Amino acid sequence: MINHSRIQKVQERMRERNIDAYLVLTHDDFIYLFGENWVQPRAIVPAEGQPVIVAFKAEEEEIRKSLGLKDVKIFGSLGEQMKDVIGVMRDLKGDKKTISVGVQMWFNTPAFLMMMFRKANPFVIPTDIAPVMDELRMFKDEGEMEKMRRAAEIASIGMKTAVEAIKPGITENEVAAEAEYAMRKAGGHGMAIPVWVNSGYRSNWLHGAATEKKIEKGELVLIDIVPVYGGYCSNLCRTFTVGAATDEQKKLFNTYKEARQAAIGAMKPGTAMKELDKAAKAVFIDKGFGEYYIAGISHGIGLGFEETPAPTIKPGDSAVKVKEGMTLTAGHPVLSVPGIGGVRLEDTFSITADGPVPLTDFPQELELPIA
Amino acid sequence: MINHSRIQKVQERMRERNIDAYLVLTHDDFIYLFGENWVQPRAIVPAEGQPVIVAFKAEEEEIRKSLGLKDVKIFGSLGEQMKDVIGVMRDLKGDKKTISVGVQMWFNTPAFLMMMFRKANPFVIPTDIAPVMDELRMFKDEGEMEKMRRAAEIASIGMKTAVEAIKPGITENEVAAEAEYAMRKAGGHGMAIPVWVNSGYRSNWLHGAATEKKIEKGELVLIDIVPVYGGYCSNLCRTFTVGAATDEQKKLFNTYKEARQAAIGAMKPGTAMKELDKAAKAVFIDKGFGEYYIAGISHGIGLGFEETPAPTIKPGDSAVKVKEGMTLTAGHPVLSVPGIGGVRLEDTFSITADGPVPLTDFPQELELPIA
Repeated sequence: MINHSRIQKVQERMRERNIDAYLVLTHDDFIYLFGENWVQPRAIVPAEGQPVIVAFKAEEEEIRKSLGLKDVKIFGSLGEQMKDVIGVMRDLKGDKKTISVGVQMWFNTPAFLMMMFRKANPFVIPTDIAPVMDELRMFKDEGEMEKMRRAAEIASIGMKTAVEAIKPGITENEVAAEAEYAMRKAGGHGMAIPVWVNSGYRSNWLHGAATEKKIEKGELVLIDIVPVYGGYCSNLCRTFTVGAATDEQKKLFNTYKEARQAAIGAMKPGTAMKELDKAAKAVFIDKGFGEYYIAGISHGIGLGFEETPAPTIKPGDSAVKVKEGMTLTAGHPVLSVPGIGGVRLEDTFSITADGPVPLTDFPQELELPIA
Repeated sequence: MINHSRIQKVQERMRERNIDAYLVLTHDDFIYLFGENWVQPRAIVPAEGQPVIVAFKAEEEEIRKSLGLKDVKIFGSLGEQMKDVIGVMRDLKGDKKTISVGVQMWFNTPAFLMMMFRKANPFVIPTDIAPVMDELRMFKDEGEMEKMRRAAEIASIGMKTAVEAIKPGITENEVAAEAEYAMRKAGGHGMAIPVWVNSGYRSNWLHGAATEKKIEKGELVLIDIVPVYGGYCSNLCRTFTVGAATDEQKKLFNTYKEARQAAIGAMKPGTAMKELDKAAKAVFIDKGFGEYYIAGISHGIGLGFEETPAPTIKPGDSAVKVKEGMTLTAGHPVLSVPGIGGVRLEDTFSITADGPVPLTDFPQELELPIA
């Protein structure tokens, strides 16, 4: 159902920033404002007045029913989608020379769509809508928290299944398949990103995947899971050794664990994101791994699996302060040492007045009991 | 392994078009040129000379080993990724005022990355690389065809599993979970898009998904599957009724089947893509569904699940001629009639001198035998 109070807040913030309209093209913002996950969301929220949904004619009945949008205009033709958008833009423009239209510039907005849009609407000045949307979305209400808690439970089920599947000779893909299936069966709505299973030298990877590589005894195995429930994500990552760990593997693991714990200790309302990095990096330096520290120990999570504050993508976000009501992860960057391997432990937290409360739940134990 | 002959062809085409370099940011082109699927591919192919890979220091050893890139420069630092790219661009620029740099503008290139890149490289004129890459990628060699055939087999396994799972009361998500798991177990490397299971009024959707909706007796269920094997996609879609079909459902199904068959009949070397639409639309008109025809009955498929020619996204592609060596689907747009439902049947074909040869294989039968 359409969330009128959120739309009002968005419109207020748009007026404060002289943004004439917000062109919604992404799933996360569409869910946030309209409560439904359309496969190709297209909507326009003007700074004042009613939102406009651009939809395919055969979907009209369901859209009206599910969104409760009696008062919202629905367009008919597919081929004229762009023309419809231009028409709304022209109406908004009126006598003005140009209008300012907000767009999410994030990963989900393709470059060609922006270029087509600019070409078709030369009087439109595209503006990043992140300052309007992201600062609202940072703070989760109880309805959102329920979904995030459920997503976290599903992540824990996925990790348990992955761990049970690991044995020498199994491929990374097979482990990922078992974990994804278990999370689907547990009621999850798919993955924000496919499950990462990175074993041996592949644990060094900055960004993971699962491949046809077989997992061997003695290797490090890094498993990163981001299931979605009702649009909301949860992030859980663990690293294991297949059987007994070497001293070097133990040292990496314990360094990461301690560094991350330092970041979690600093994760209190009022602390800037960069302070979390400072706390974690100090441990890396102390243990002799300073040169391997990658900034960005924590990031926001919710409808996006990496959302504001996201210092690894937007360096400016390192100045954002931790606040009550946020949901953050801790343990984002891999500690990757060539010749040894990579380690990461990541969990999702809810920030309360007293500090972080974990949503995900899985033991932090390095060695899998494999003979 | 790096594919030198493809890189040479790309470089020739770039020189013909006065493109100074190609900034590779997408998985499909990276696999095409370097034979590996890196999670965040970043490479620069100059119009002459050696390609440059931008990689994380801990990945260097594996990159050198797996790509066979003795002669390719590998960058070290993550935070300086953008700086590294700018450095290469400056070297390419030399004494010139501006350089022309190709980028894929397609769905996988986010708008913000393009904007950041343009800001950081004001002397760079970004150019769409599609005319260089897509016209090469349209034609598959035998190594590519092997992967596409395997992906097609996996799609058929997924469809069989989905059909076996369908019963009144099961949710769309549960059916999707079973199909995805079976395809993973069969050796698939994940889905290009999550399995669509659209039942009842949701079969009307232009773009599908699987939801918590329960599938009921008598409903239309549209299942669309796009698994990936070794980077290559295959597309298979079928529509069923849960038990006996109504006359209206049968009429929709038979119209779609006949229209699609007309398009397949026209799918011969030398025919323009728009002629396939003409053939299919004539059947829709004949059966009284002309107003529901959505253009784009066929599209290219390969490393991309919808790649050139892709007339629904790039209208100009409707003039592209079918040629031997292409891989095309037939049956892309849904026949969606409000009040009745939606029907689609899609398969993947290899184009030979004699016409299309199907890669996917699944019966076209409307009614599932459910009492």
